[in-house]
Amino acid sequence: MVPHLTTALTGPLLGLEQKILDSMPEIEHWFRTQWQEHTPPFYCSVDLRNAGFKLAPVDTNLFPGGFNNLNAAFLPLCVQAVMIAIEKICPDARNLLLIPENHTRNTFYLQNVVQLSTILRQTGLNVRIGSLNPEIREPTRIDLPGGQQLLLEPLVRSNGRLTIEGFDPCAILLNNDLSSGIPEILGNLHEQFLLPPLQAGWAVRRKSNHFAAYDEVAANFSKLVGIDPWLINPAFAICGEVNFQERQGEECLASNVDFLLREITTKYLEYGIEETPFVIVKADAGTYGMGIMTVKDASEVRGLNRKQRNRMAVVKEGLEVTQVIIQEGVPTFESINEAIAEPVVYMIDHFVVGGFYRVHTGRGRDESLNAPGMHFVPLAFEDCCTLPDLTCRAGTAPNRFYAYGVIARLALLAAALELERTLPAE
Amino acid sequence: MVPHLTTALTGPLLGLEQKILDSMPEIEHWFRTQWQEHTPPFYCSVDLRNAGFKLAPVDTNLFPGGFNNLNAAFLPLCVQAVMIAIEKICPDARNLLLIPENHTRNTFYLQNVVQLSTILRQTGLNVRIGSLNPEIREPTRIDLPGGQQLLLEPLVRSNGRLTIEGFDPCAILLNNDLSSGIPEILGNLHEQFLLPPLQAGWAVRRKSNHFAAYDEVAANFSKLVGIDPWLINPAFAICGEVNFQERQGEECLASNVDFLLREITTKYLEYGIEETPFVIVKADAGTYGMGIMTVKDASEVRGLNRKQRNRMAVVKEGLEVTQVIIQEGVPTFESINEAIAEPVVYMIDHFVVGGFYRVHTGRGRDESLNAPGMHFVPLAFEDCCTLPDLTCRAGTAPNRFYAYGVIARLALLAAALELERTLPAE
Repeated sequence: MVPHLTTALTGPLLGLEQKILDSMPEIEHWFRTQWQEHTPPFYCSVDLRNAGFKLAPVDTNLFPGGFNNLNAAFLPLCVQAVMIAIEKICPDARNLLLIPENHTRNTFYLQNVVQLSTILRQTGLNVRIGSLNPEIREPTRIDLPGGQQLLLEPLVRSNGRLTIEGFDPCAILLNNDLSSGIPEILGNLHEQFLLPPLQAGWAVRRKSNHFAAYDEVAANFSKLVGIDPWLINPAFAICGEVNFQERQGEECLASNVDFLLREITTKYLEYGIEETPFVIVKADAGTYGMGIMTVKDASEVRGLNRKQRNRMAVVKEGLEVTQVIIQEGVPTFESINEAIAEPVVYMIDHFVVGGFYRVHTGRGRDESLNAPGMHFVPLAFEDCCTLPDLTCRAGTAPNRFYAYGVIARLALLAAALELERTLPAE
Repeated sequence: MVPHLTTALTGPLLGLEQKILDSMPEIEHWFRTQWQEHTPPFYCSVDLRNAGFKLAPVDTNLFPGGFNNLNAAFLPLCVQAVMIAIEKICPDARNLLLIPENHTRNTFYLQNVVQLSTILRQTGLNVRIGSLNPEIREPTRIDLPGGQQLLLEPLVRSNGRLTIEGFDPCAILLNNDLSSGIPEILGNLHEQFLLPPLQAGWAVRRKSNHFAAYDEVAANFSKLVGIDPWLINPAFAICGEVNFQERQGEECLASNVDFLLREITTKYLEYGIEETPFVIVKADAGTYGMGIMTVKDASEVRGLNRKQRNRMAVVKEGLEVTQVIIQEGVPTFESINEAIAEPVVYMIDHFVVGGFYRVHTGRGRDESLNAPGMHFVPLAFEDCCTLPDLTCRAGTAPNRFYAYGVIARLALLAAALELERTLPAE
């Protein structure tokens, strides 16, 4: 059973959804031609914010960690999509090595690893799980709630290849975002496919590259469908030389915050939106919502106190923040019984395979829902996002899910462009 | 709700299923390499017979007519598979013309056409339905039970292309098996994709070509998995010069029937099977189970009476029978509450997308279940055939469905080979 979503069903969003529905054949044709030219990452999840007047991606994750949150009914869809991805990338593969994050005590995350390996195995691949965690020195069995088990094995470098004792994989799938840097053991692999490529890891990746590519994708798409690109695109700016501890870059931050807030105010006036503009300040590299601030006035980023500075200075795995992205805040208007809900769309290859809502009671609708200490309840989509009902009006469930899937695929396409452009020179 | 299947769960079949499960990675790898070399038909359905000791395809249909019988839960799987097919064949396509069978009063069939066009439209294609039926001289709306509607439109040849008034398609999908010959209007199309190709139609196609290709596929697969190919392959023979009305070819028929029955008897002895061997005599070209006989002794095909001869002499659309295929009969051991059940597996591109059982009360387990006047009840598979549970023993539902999917894909691969080999010289 899926609770009813009390989304604001008035204003420009219905118009946007209707435009998307009306243009479905053009949109799908356009995506087909885009995927002829660009290679999607192996998998991807996209956090969307639905503001009623605006539907936009706010975060694109190339190491999705919530496969266990998807509706089990769409497992066959995941399996079929992985089959396609493997056929395209490494049809001759028999053995696949999955490398998860290092945290061995996060049960939710480990259930994701179980689910992901189940999907991969259903395509007929032999799958084993190799850990970068130095504490895993021998095969380690982890028991999970519900009787599931996970076997983590130590990685062994052998003849220029990454292996596990007795297991030489053709393909290596990272579910580890490399926040702590690129481990030496992953470098210069001999005839092994690494998915996604190293530049997808946070040791190299920058959100600003992603959203610059998204600007382009959103502009092209908006022209196709005949909408203002702002309706699907959060504005952003970057500050390149920030050191929160040393109070460097404060002025750059403040002036960019101010610029963006003015831009948003103009748009709110244009569309008659009676909301208070805000921006999100976050690290340009890194994930897990550490180092994130909601800002409604430039003065708030001047003279941060020690606690605030400490919080902003580092993200996951101690990665230091030196570059900051300031992104237009998109308030969420979706809620389930008073609780804020943020859709997360999952894709494998270029196919939407499901998603879920992050349902969170303790947060405001102008805050990030992916933050440390945040306890969300995942609510699987009842719908697979690919079956719009053109005989119904915009705003009905299959049509809203289709719109989610379209916007998420735009972010996926931006990720494809981003990875192309950040490919290191040989 | 899906009734329990009282399949015989002993004997060699469990062994066969277990072999298939144990070899799943090898099987999927093998299929991947096969599909690198061979192009699957756009879609296909395969009738299987499950004899307990043997699981084999008995009919491979390149114009499947039961999409309405599939489990609605697997609709997303169909849509995703069509997306892949379109991307491979004609990524630039926007408009698709669907050509159904001519019978405009068969409600079950027309519901299939509705379902098929729904699947196609969900991929973002503009779909219209053009009829070869000369009675359709203007756009004709047909009302179906449940409020569904179908618009049949007359075909127009224009500048070497097949069109509908105001609709110029890039791709044409046949759901008409061309039993009555290749209509002139389909010849020499200018830059339009015809799916499947003309040689898939019964005007050209021969079952014997298909089963000759299947012999090869089954032999390779059996070597891979380590089984006797007979366990998945019905033996067959052909008689090329038969005229039932004129009593020509009776001797060829009788000697081949005799030969096959002996072969089956030997195999039954080898495996300790206490069944009466039988063969199915049917037209080498044609469908719909007309012109089909169950034969347990060669004497039965000698001196057929007038009624029997008339019944065998023609198949659908008056197509005359001149070549006959004699196929090893595979009794069905699957039943639902005393009724005989025959699995039909549906595929799009090279993906299994579901299936259903033909459940029939009035027939014996050694008779064809696809015969004129036959009223079967379709029972959608509860499972998508792609999610075997390797932790369970053979014979459980997901594993049996997986075995169905594997054998059906072997027939699909045989169809791919058959279409390659029957491609007309330019």
